[in-house]
Amino acid sequence: MNGHWLLPEHLADVLPAEARRVEELRRSLLDLFRTYGFETVSAPMVEYLDSLLAGAGEDLRLRTFKLVDQLSGRTLGLRADMTPQATRIDAHLLNRQGVTRLCYCGPVLHTRPNGLLASRELLQIGAEIYGYSGFQADLEIIRLAIATLSKAGITNSHLVLCHDGLIQAIINSDSAAVARADEIISLLRDKDLPGISGLADIEGGLLGQTVEALHWLARLNGGVEVLESAREHLPPLPEVTQALQTLEALLAGLDMTSLSIDLADAGQYGYHSGVTFMFYAPNWHDALVRGGRYDNISMAYGRARAATGFSLDLRRLAALLEPAAPVRAVLAPAGYDAELNKSIDKLRDSGEIVVQLLPHECAEHAEFEIDRELANVGGRWIVRPLN
Amino acid sequence: MNGHWLLPEHLADVLPAEARRVEELRRSLLDLFRTYGFETVSAPMVEYLDSLLAGAGEDLRLRTFKLVDQLSGRTLGLRADMTPQATRIDAHLLNRQGVTRLCYCGPVLHTRPNGLLASRELLQIGAEIYGYSGFQADLEIIRLAIATLSKAGITNSHLVLCHDGLIQAIINSDSAAVARADEIISLLRDKDLPGISGLADIEGGLLGQTVEALHWLARLNGGVEVLESAREHLPPLPEVTQALQTLEALLAGLDMTSLSIDLADAGQYGYHSGVTFMFYAPNWHDALVRGGRYDNISMAYGRARAATGFSLDLRRLAALLEPAAPVRAVLAPAGYDAELNKSIDKLRDSGEIVVQLLPHECAEHAEFEIDRELANVGGRWIVRPLN
Repeated sequence: MNGHWLLPEHLADVLPAEARRVEELRRSLLDLFRTYGFETVSAPMVEYLDSLLAGAGEDLRLRTFKLVDQLSGRTLGLRADMTPQATRIDAHLLNRQGVTRLCYCGPVLHTRPNGLLASRELLQIGAEIYGYSGFQADLEIIRLAIATLSKAGITNSHLVLCHDGLIQAIINSDSAAVARADEIISLLRDKDLPGISGLADIEGGLLGQTVEALHWLARLNGGVEVLESAREHLPPLPEVTQALQTLEALLAGLDMTSLSIDLADAGQYGYHSGVTFMFYAPNWHDALVRGGRYDNISMAYGRARAATGFSLDLRRLAALLEPAAPVRAVLAPAGYDAELNKSIDKLRDSGEIVVQLLPHECAEHAEFEIDRELANVGGRWIVRPLN
Repeated sequence: MNGHWLLPEHLADVLPAEARRVEELRRSLLDLFRTYGFETVSAPMVEYLDSLLAGAGEDLRLRTFKLVDQLSGRTLGLRADMTPQATRIDAHLLNRQGVTRLCYCGPVLHTRPNGLLASRELLQIGAEIYGYSGFQADLEIIRLAIATLSKAGITNSHLVLCHDGLIQAIINSDSAAVARADEIISLLRDKDLPGISGLADIEGGLLGQTVEALHWLARLNGGVEVLESAREHLPPLPEVTQALQTLEALLAGLDMTSLSIDLADAGQYGYHSGVTFMFYAPNWHDALVRGGRYDNISMAYGRARAATGFSLDLRRLAALLEPAAPVRAVLAPAGYDAELNKSIDKLRDSGEIVVQLLPHECAEHAEFEIDRELANVGGRWIVRPLN
C-alpha cells in the first residue's frame, strides 16, 4: 500500500487511446519498410555488456543499465540502442556477402533521460542498410526517413545534413589535435569559438591553421551555400573534398525544401562516421529522427561492413499526431444463447468490436464509442442504433 | 573481437522469417482481443521492484532481474510478468468502477529459464478482465483463450481446469496445515502421496482427516467425472461446494472435447486464487497458455478488484506453427529516373515489395522470393516475370 502505484521518474504507462495510436503507427511503418525490401529482425533486451557496447562510445555506455547474469556471473546490459544489435545480426548471424536491409522495432531503456521532458523508455523503430558504402545507400535511407515521417502525417519536418569526415580530416592533419579529438568535437558541437582558440594557446597546442579551419567549420552551418563556402575556406585535404562531393550528391537526389547543413556536428553515441542527419519537427526541441553512416563498427562482431541507417522513438512520433478518434463498437446482451453467440462471432469475424455484457455489468468503456446494440427483434438478432 | 557476437545462454535473436511470423500473429491476436472489447495498454519495462512484486509470490521475485536506478537510488526490477502491471493500471490509473477489459503485448525477462529449452525472454501477450467476480468472466477469458489458439491455427489443444479453492479450504480447516501451506501445495503439485502422509506422523502434524482429504485431492485429476468424485470424497466445506459449482458452470459453458480437471494444482507465481487453467499443445512439454483468477492482488495498488485473465508467449506460439511461405517481391533497377521512381512508389503504395538495387548491387534477399522485375520496355516501366 506504500505508493506501489508510483512509477520511477521519466517512465510512464501508455493508456488505451495512445497505445492504439502507437500500435497503428508501428504497423504502418513496419509495412512501409517492408515495401522497400527491409527484413524485420529482433534481438534480446539484454546482452553481455561488452557485446552491446562493442564499437559504441562513452555516451551509450553511461546510458546503459547494468545487471548481473546469474547463469554466467557476467555483467549484462539492458539495451539503450538497437542499432548495434542489428549490426551484430548482419555481421555474424546472417553473414551475407551482398547488401542487407534490416529493420526492427522494440523498447530501449536509458539510465538517464535525454532532457527534462524525455522518457527513459523509448520504442525504437529503425531501418539499416549493410554492405554498401556508396552515397546511394545514404540517399535511400534519407528518402525512407522522409517517407516514414510523411506516413505518420508529418510533412513539415526540417532536415539537417552533417558529415564528420571534415572534422576528422582536419583533426588528423594535426597531431596535437588528434590527442584532443573528443574535446574538439564537443567544442565544435557547442560552436564554442573561444574554447577552440584556447586550444592553440596552451603548450603543445593546435597549429594556427587547424584552429582557423575549425573556426570555419563551426560557422559552416546554414543553407546549401555552406558547401560552396566550405570548398573555399577549408584546407583542400582529399577527405574534405570527398565529403563535400558526397553531400552534394545527396542534395541532388533529395527534393526537401526545408533543409540545412551543419558541418560542425559529428553524430551521436560515438559510432557514426561519414554522413549523419537529423529531422526536426516544428515546436519540438530535439531531433525526431537521427541517422547516418557507421561503417566498420561491425568489426567488433568479426566482419567489416559498410552501414547506414536511421531510427526514431515511435512513442514520441505518435505524441506529435492528432489524438485518435474513438472507435465504434456494438453492445451485446449477456447470456449464452446459441443464436446470439453466432451473431456475435459473425460480427467479430468481420472486424466489428462487440462488447458482450457480463450479467449485471454496466457498460463503461472509455476507448469505445458504443453506438449500436445487438437486439432480439421478433426472434432474430439484429444490430440497431443505440439510443 | 573476443566473441562479441555471443549471446547469453537462453537468449536468442529472431531472424526475418520468424520475426515476420511473430509480427503477423501479434497483429491478428491484438485485433482479436479488440473485437472482444479489450483495450490495449502498455507499461514500462522497469519499475520499482517493490511495485512490480507487490502481491506476487516468491517465484516471481526470484525470476526478476534487479538493477539500480541512478535517479532515485532505489532498486528497479526488469519485469518478468506483465499481469501485475495491467492490474496496477486498472486499479490506480484507469480507476473505473465498472468492468474493464485490458490486453497487452511486450517483452518480459526471466533471470533463469523455465526449462532446458526455454528462453529467458518471452514476448508476453495477454488479456485480463477486472471488476467482475462471477464465473462468467472466467468463461469469457477461457473462450477468448480458445479463440486465440484457434486464430493461431492450433485446434488440438488440451485444457486443464483447476481451482485452488479446494486446497485452500482443506488447509484452512486444520491449523497444523495452515502452518505448512506452501509445503502442502508443493507436495500436491508433485502428487507426492507419501510426502503428504509424512506430514501426519510428525509432532504437531496434520489431522488424519486432512491427510485423507489431501490424498483424495491428489488423485482428483482426470475427466469431468472428477467433479462427482470430489463431491463424494472431499469434506463438505462451503468453499469446496462453491468451487465445485463454479467448475461445473464453466464446463457447461465450454464445448472443449479435450479437457481435464486437476484439483491438486494451485496456480503459478503465487498470485492466483480461484479458477486457474492451462492449455497444452501436442508434443509440447509445458503449458502454452496459463491463466486464471487473481482477485485482490490489486489491493497492493490501493483498490480491491476482482480479476481474471490469461497470457502466453507469442514467440513460442509462433514456433509451433508451420514456417511462413516466402513473400514475393519485385526487383527494380538502380537509378533516379523520375518515371522509374513514380512506378516504384505506385507499386509500394499498393503494398508490393519493391527492392530497388543500388548501383552494382547483386540481389540477395533470403526472405523474399523475387519473381518479377520492373523493366523499361519501349519507354514505359512495366512489371514482368523474372527469368
